[in-house]
Amino acid sequence: MAFAFTLIKKDLHSKARLGKITTPHGQVDTPVFMPVGTQATVKAMTPEELKEIGAEIILSNTYHLYLRPGHELIKNMGGLHKFMHWDMPILTDSGGYQVFSHNELRRIKEEGVYFQSHLDGSKHFLSPEKVVEIQEALSADIIMCLDECTPYPATRDYTAASMERTHRWARRCKERLGLGAGGWGLKKPALFGIVQGGMFRDLRRQSAEEITGIGFDGYAIGGLSVGEDKVLMYEMVGAAVPCLPEDRPRYLMGVGTPEDLVECVARGIDMFDCVMPTRNARNGTLFTKHGKLGIRNALFAKDTNPVENGCGCYTCKNYSRAYLRHLFMANEILAARLGTYHNLYYYINLIRDMRKAIEGDGFEEFREEFYKNRG
Amino acid sequence: MAFAFTLIKKDLHSKARLGKITTPHGQVDTPVFMPVGTQATVKAMTPEELKEIGAEIILSNTYHLYLRPGHELIKNMGGLHKFMHWDMPILTDSGGYQVFSHNELRRIKEEGVYFQSHLDGSKHFLSPEKVVEIQEALSADIIMCLDECTPYPATRDYTAASMERTHRWARRCKERLGLGAGGWGLKKPALFGIVQGGMFRDLRRQSAEEITGIGFDGYAIGGLSVGEDKVLMYEMVGAAVPCLPEDRPRYLMGVGTPEDLVECVARGIDMFDCVMPTRNARNGTLFTKHGKLGIRNALFAKDTNPVENGCGCYTCKNYSRAYLRHLFMANEILAARLGTYHNLYYYINLIRDMRKAIEGDGFEEFREEFYKNRG
Repeated sequence: MAFAFTLIKKDLHSKARLGKITTPHGQVDTPVFMPVGTQATVKAMTPEELKEIGAEIILSNTYHLYLRPGHELIKNMGGLHKFMHWDMPILTDSGGYQVFSHNELRRIKEEGVYFQSHLDGSKHFLSPEKVVEIQEALSADIIMCLDECTPYPATRDYTAASMERTHRWARRCKERLGLGAGGWGLKKPALFGIVQGGMFRDLRRQSAEEITGIGFDGYAIGGLSVGEDKVLMYEMVGAAVPCLPEDRPRYLMGVGTPEDLVECVARGIDMFDCVMPTRNARNGTLFTKHGKLGIRNALFAKDTNPVENGCGCYTCKNYSRAYLRHLFMANEILAARLGTYHNLYYYINLIRDMRKAIEGDGFEEFREEFYKNRG
Repeated sequence: MAFAFTLIKKDLHSKARLGKITTPHGQVDTPVFMPVGTQATVKAMTPEELKEIGAEIILSNTYHLYLRPGHELIKNMGGLHKFMHWDMPILTDSGGYQVFSHNELRRIKEEGVYFQSHLDGSKHFLSPEKVVEIQEALSADIIMCLDECTPYPATRDYTAASMERTHRWARRCKERLGLGAGGWGLKKPALFGIVQGGMFRDLRRQSAEEITGIGFDGYAIGGLSVGEDKVLMYEMVGAAVPCLPEDRPRYLMGVGTPEDLVECVARGIDMFDCVMPTRNARNGTLFTKHGKLGIRNALFAKDTNPVENGCGCYTCKNYSRAYLRHLFMANEILAARLGTYHNLYYYINLIRDMRKAIEGDGFEEFREEFYKNRG
């Protein structure tokens, strides 16, 4: 199957919407949360567990895979799906974000970005064309254009210039994919453009219009959750979304907290990814509908309750807070496993509940209930 | 069900034997390999995975659980089985071995052993009576007497004196359990005595006879695999076993390699535990019938084969050596999981194959084949 997006339903009182993405590796219901599999594994999880939890698509990081084990190796192993034993859709990012966040010594030029590996200091160059080639080699279902994640804070001038370069890079990515050198046939990946524009409403609108003008299979909003206030972030999402076409999926990159998911679904976002549920789990921070729980707290040493009463996940069905706390205090691998399982279950069910609410015209009630539970 | 051991069959050409242990938490076929769950978790594994692999009993460490989270806490949580979500048999050691191996500052006295916690330096005292009480609190199915794991090398005089103290401690453990303060009813744990005697054949025989004279539910051989030659270790096993009663299980503590399992089953051992499959897995050393494989080796970078062709384990059915190597190089948690799964599968199937061989009067052929495969 080729890539497609079907808009199924729009919420009556908000911009929330229900959709379905079709990819060569199956369908994805939106809104969707994509667990992050940075190095060709969602940390601590097997693919079977991800499916059990209800994950329909995962994200993997081009920057990391390019450096180790290398995209050519993964291509020769039959592509990322086969390599990591995940037969459902995969979205890869362009690597741009990691180049900017992992590299003090990066140099951004019109032709692309020069950087050093965080692993061994070796020198590398990524161009718009190159990131498309790498993502093709990985055999991702959805690939992203190279963009500059504009730093925060940044001046209007810097932001505008950076955004313009991101637009030029987007054109080059589309052209490179259009050349079709990959020879995918029907498996040609979908290419998403990325809206930048920093914290400037008008630049966000301008970027959304220009990127839409180039024409992509889907549209991402990048450069948010980089240190700005929530209010500002939601404003930027609110500025960009109305300029994006209704009949294409909208992906808010690298965001966010459970609140962020609720607020941005309300603003018309269809796709999310974030390391928060997995990374926090490994630190012992577990999500519940009543808020976060630091499981290492001595409060839980003798607590026979599960992480969250009523939660249907494997962790909550079988283990007490006391046992989890013990595992975390003892730095046991099972701690990371059980914590990750619970947090991903929480995120994926949160977004599933939002889908149900939109379907039943009850999204506003859902949103109220969500905040009421947090007290 | 109370504890029982049934000797089912003896091999025609060796001392290998087939048996069945009955415990309050179910039955165990012998010879058996017990995965080690040091801190109330077999590192990187869930109980469901252990069952899938075929584990019938696990070992947990009294020393570690006593220090963290504490045996009283585990008792209040409903016992170790409930705490860690494992409903099959558990054997706990006495903690003596870890006191000796983790503590430079230990002092051994007639009354027991004084030591400092490796976690926080706090001072502790374990006596024969205390280790029985701790193991009762943990609700283990099989508990061990406090013994001194005689260091290697040691003089004959030291070894003999140490052994005599181990015998006196064994009597005190049995007496303490006999007092029945735990109020277990039918769930009273089985108590195993431990044979010491260092590297002296006659002391090993003497110890086996004296411990047997006291009378226990089963008999362990301790103080081996402490740095001595394999030949010497097998000699010590060979010296002790004939002095142990046929109608009780024989447990060789903390041993060993796959070869050790084969050689010691041949010498009449019924039970084994060892951290080797789990610890080696986390270091990237994987067991196959052809020998060990260091998966981090660059040789495997592009190897599409599973760890072991023909292996039926989850890891080998779904992942290549190249992917495993990548996970290990990237220090991913999934590396430890997949490696541990494979190694435990290897160990548990090795011993299952030995049981089948004994059952079919083919143990000697099995042993020949085992060495032939290693080339």
